[in-house]
Amino acid sequence: MRLRSTIDFLLYDWLQAEGLTSRSRFADHSRDTFDAVMDTCERIAREKYAPFNRTVDLQEPQFDGEKVILPQCTYEAREAYAESGMLSAAQDYEMGGMQLPYTVEAAANCFFAAASISIGSNMLTSGNANAIMAHGTERQKKVFAANEFNGRWAGTMALSEPQAGSSLSDIATRAEPDGVEYESDALGPRYRLKGNKMWISSGDHEMTENIVHLVLAKIPGADGKTIAGVKGISLFIVPKKLVDAEGRLTGERNDVALAGLNHKLGWRGTTNTLLNFGEGKYPVRGQHGGGLDGRGAGAIGYLVGKPGEGLKCMFHMMNEARISIGMAASMLGMAGYHASLEYAQSRPQGRPIGEGGKDASRPQSRIIEHADVKRMLLAQKAYCEGALALNLLCARLVDEQYTGQSQEAAEARLLLEVLTPVAKSWPSEFCLEANSLAIQIHGGYGYTRDFAVEQYWRDNRLNMIHEGTHGIQAMDLLGRKVVMDGGKGLQLLAARINVTIQRAMQHEKLGTYANQLARALADVGSTTKAAWATGNPQDALANAVPYMQAFGHLVLAWIWLDVALAVLAMDKDLAIAAHRGSMAAQRYFFHYELPRIGAWLQVVKARDMTCAAMEEEAF
Amino acid sequence: MRLRSTIDFLLYDWLQAEGLTSRSRFADHSRDTFDAVMDTCERIAREKYAPFNRTVDLQEPQFDGEKVILPQCTYEAREAYAESGMLSAAQDYEMGGMQLPYTVEAAANCFFAAASISIGSNMLTSGNANAIMAHGTERQKKVFAANEFNGRWAGTMALSEPQAGSSLSDIATRAEPDGVEYESDALGPRYRLKGNKMWISSGDHEMTENIVHLVLAKIPGADGKTIAGVKGISLFIVPKKLVDAEGRLTGERNDVALAGLNHKLGWRGTTNTLLNFGEGKYPVRGQHGGGLDGRGAGAIGYLVGKPGEGLKCMFHMMNEARISIGMAASMLGMAGYHASLEYAQSRPQGRPIGEGGKDASRPQSRIIEHADVKRMLLAQKAYCEGALALNLLCARLVDEQYTGQSQEAAEARLLLEVLTPVAKSWPSEFCLEANSLAIQIHGGYGYTRDFAVEQYWRDNRLNMIHEGTHGIQAMDLLGRKVVMDGGKGLQLLAARINVTIQRAMQHEKLGTYANQLARALADVGSTTKAAWATGNPQDALANAVPYMQAFGHLVLAWIWLDVALAVLAMDKDLAIAAHRGSMAAQRYFFHYELPRIGAWLQVVKARDMTCAAMEEEAF
Repeated sequence: MRLRSTIDFLLYDWLQAEGLTSRSRFADHSRDTFDAVMDTCERIAREKYAPFNRTVDLQEPQFDGEKVILPQCTYEAREAYAESGMLSAAQDYEMGGMQLPYTVEAAANCFFAAASISIGSNMLTSGNANAIMAHGTERQKKVFAANEFNGRWAGTMALSEPQAGSSLSDIATRAEPDGVEYESDALGPRYRLKGNKMWISSGDHEMTENIVHLVLAKIPGADGKTIAGVKGISLFIVPKKLVDAEGRLTGERNDVALAGLNHKLGWRGTTNTLLNFGEGKYPVRGQHGGGLDGRGAGAIGYLVGKPGEGLKCMFHMMNEARISIGMAASMLGMAGYHASLEYAQSRPQGRPIGEGGKDASRPQSRIIEHADVKRMLLAQKAYCEGALALNLLCARLVDEQYTGQSQEAAEARLLLEVLTPVAKSWPSEFCLEANSLAIQIHGGYGYTRDFAVEQYWRDNRLNMIHEGTHGIQAMDLLGRKVVMDGGKGLQLLAARINVTIQRAMQHEKLGTYANQLARALADVGSTTKAAWATGNPQDALANAVPYMQAFGHLVLAWIWLDVALAVLAMDKDLAIAAHRGSMAAQRYFFHYELPRIGAWLQVVKARDMTCAAMEEEAF
Repeated sequence: MRLRSTIDFLLYDWLQAEGLTSRSRFADHSRDTFDAVMDTCERIAREKYAPFNRTVDLQEPQFDGEKVILPQCTYEAREAYAESGMLSAAQDYEMGGMQLPYTVEAAANCFFAAASISIGSNMLTSGNANAIMAHGTERQKKVFAANEFNGRWAGTMALSEPQAGSSLSDIATRAEPDGVEYESDALGPRYRLKGNKMWISSGDHEMTENIVHLVLAKIPGADGKTIAGVKGISLFIVPKKLVDAEGRLTGERNDVALAGLNHKLGWRGTTNTLLNFGEGKYPVRGQHGGGLDGRGAGAIGYLVGKPGEGLKCMFHMMNEARISIGMAASMLGMAGYHASLEYAQSRPQGRPIGEGGKDASRPQSRIIEHADVKRMLLAQKAYCEGALALNLLCARLVDEQYTGQSQEAAEARLLLEVLTPVAKSWPSEFCLEANSLAIQIHGGYGYTRDFAVEQYWRDNRLNMIHEGTHGIQAMDLLGRKVVMDGGKGLQLLAARINVTIQRAMQHEKLGTYANQLARALADVGSTTKAAWATGNPQDALANAVPYMQAFGHLVLAWIWLDVALAVLAMDKDLAIAAHRGSMAAQRYFFHYELPRIGAWLQVVKARDMTCAAMEEEAF
């Protein structure tokens, strides 16, 4: 498998993941155990995911008014995934986990994403349970997280509302204490929630015995008013079906009702829902008396963490979710790359241009022999393998953050802050472009449902939107991440990039590229300063997206140069074809892609107000 | 209507289309008659097209084994279009036409394209009939073209085959003389055709009494062999139902059978077919004796033009078809721009960044107040209005070519040669990007079928493929158009661009942009030379697509600067908001877009072989 060998190279030869086994947390592991996990995931993905990718696209989720109907393959894929132990792979042994490094977990999950991104939404379940592990009580961990990890229950993230997407400070879901003894519930302070949540992936289905919703809501003050802004937001566990303190279903349904399914352009294997909390479809009787014991009083929810710290708790989950989205985008791109490569190797069409013109009496060439098809393949390779490398690096930093020495852990945390918006946004933009190139290589066939590539393109379009749009990521990067702590994160990243530059300077093959990267780094640095020269966020952020595009290209160029160093360290003479391929992708990136940053940075540097100053009437 | 006022401005104020009425062919016309045509088209598009755009997407064409089933709205839209007289609008009075300038015809057709690109495929019918008018016999014009113009029949272009898409020289459809007296048929030399044609839009339906296929096929020599390459290709009229010399249906069906429908990513209102010619499903008896009078002997076809000149005849149609595709792409982009503008003006979300931070107690802003949303709107405006302007200019050149003085006509022909690949490719790439931005502005909603923008994006993806892929257009541009006649076409375009530059130099507001455009022009010129410096097409064309992207951006920058001059000529103080909008789009293009050409040209200039030299095993 082509994907497996790419992952193996990045994981072991570039990121030196085997070195993690020397840490006490991972001491029982070895390359053999890592490989065994990847073998299993590769097999399940091949058997239970890949054959059904088109099925879940054509058989969209249906809602019959009571239940969500999904194709049979979705149940089987979910079951196989849960049985594999991947839901809890990274957890402690005592939670039933295998203490697998996150790096390996992320790598192994690639196979599912490439085979069928939308059958599974298991990353939400893991992410949900991880947030409870980080911020919940011991009881909440034991009841909710543990049952997600073992596969009995699934999880969601219920943040957005119809009127509050990017602007979470405007959520209107309210949570009120459930009676006077609300604080004495074993499962956590008990509230009644009312409100509507939009875009909730896997918000309802029959795949699991229960669904654990993590819900953002506001607790009103004594005056009945909620606090404006993000400070008023708290986090709640709201199970679809009520459970007792031991995690047994009580037989009573919570008042969480599916109001409707969103019908989407792609990613159709996953239900995307509008959920009503506490609107009385499944009224829950009050259990402890008090003023709110009537029917329709709200859905029962248990506070996680402290009141008002909901967004902080949720961000724990959001950052991992963003890396997962980056990985999803990378894998959709990769699936398209591999499909179009295979097509280009088998489709005869036209003849190569010769100095003597085309000789029509010769048989047609395979299209991989045409320069422009090679260009489209190499662009895909550079985009998708580069994006995969970046996201694996981020996963490696997550491990460093949790298991490294204090200095390394702190640096990893800081680097992750800066890199996360790029890890999420860059693949979602450029691996989407890769998917478009995969269609283009197929010609008219690529535009039909007889080939897989059009679906990858549709599936991938969501990634620039969910888990924080491109615009939101760009504000996060330029407005917060590169300036926080006096620019410490950016300085640290620059230092890392400089290490790669210094090493590349030593190589005859890479010296020019090292210089080119150094210039690009300096350019991004001075542009960052120029953007903030007036200190006015309106000036600085007017072109935040072009800034992020340039920043992303800088990061990817660094990744590729660093990968090239790893290749040369292994195979000086480049005897191995795949290694020559990595070197070509690195050259492609420096010749065709990195020079693009000039146009992006120019408007940021000039604090160009052409767009920001546009009057509404003039559109 | 926003589209109408944009078109009015470009047509009358920029292109001075009213001036065409001084030519004898258009002497009966006036701005009033032009406006009346546009009023009619705008109304029909609003009433019969726009309301059904989603219908034709959801109710894909079905084939019941005998007939194609289309939704009712498709029949009604077709009927209204045919009744409007638009099919023959540009024809002579004696053909039932109204001698409308092509410029106005193209402008009026915009309304249909923006309302629902895939309901109509009328441009194919007009284009087909135009090719017969240019190359057919008087009888062929009277029987076939006239019945297409009057709406009784529809037309197709049957070029591609399953094994021959971009490479038309490899078509395998054969045409053999139908008996010894094959040359004596009143409808033209009669042949029997056998072969399969792929990707035939509107290849079968019940909307019209008959369908006129224009089919490329090869006539074998005495040895039974066909000539390899494009020289062996001839053009035939192959009606779905046989007709007599007066154009009356004989009651007999020709042997053209629908083998299947292609199920597509978008553009679903138009059937896209695989047609079998002469495979015996509807066998036609021989009429004149001879060796081929048995059943299943082939579909009857009538030669158009001379044997072996099929591609030349068809190219007449292809060039117009390419401008139509450019216009289609522009209008899909425009529809998305207008939809996302309307959404941005009504959707509240978030608050503008202030120096003092966001104040969550204030009500949310409409998203049009965010700088990044304005950027995405202005980019769409610059892409789509610029693309529209370019295609209207091309239409204006078509009129010049046919009705101008000899020198002007010759120049128009030459300019069209150079501009056609850009007019087709640039909108199909950048107005697709515009559609992606329209989705982005809608956030999660843009990804659902509740809003129109996701369909525009899907519909638009076809435009980089059909009527010659991006790669084919780029080879045409750099391999042929800019070098033919010693580079005369490029020199002429450069001269026109220089006129604009000289005029813009006089304006305080435009001087810098004039200089920037002059530099870009020089850069494209020297890059063209550098690409061809070795004289080896393999070197020159290795990066033909990046060349075309840069060339396209140069052309669009020229268009925008020229439009800006037209604005300032009318409204020096820019008192009118729409005029300020055009000036802003021009500035956007020069600040954000034109600088991109550097990265594209660099690889062309260096004759960069990174992609072309990539070994297959290294992917």
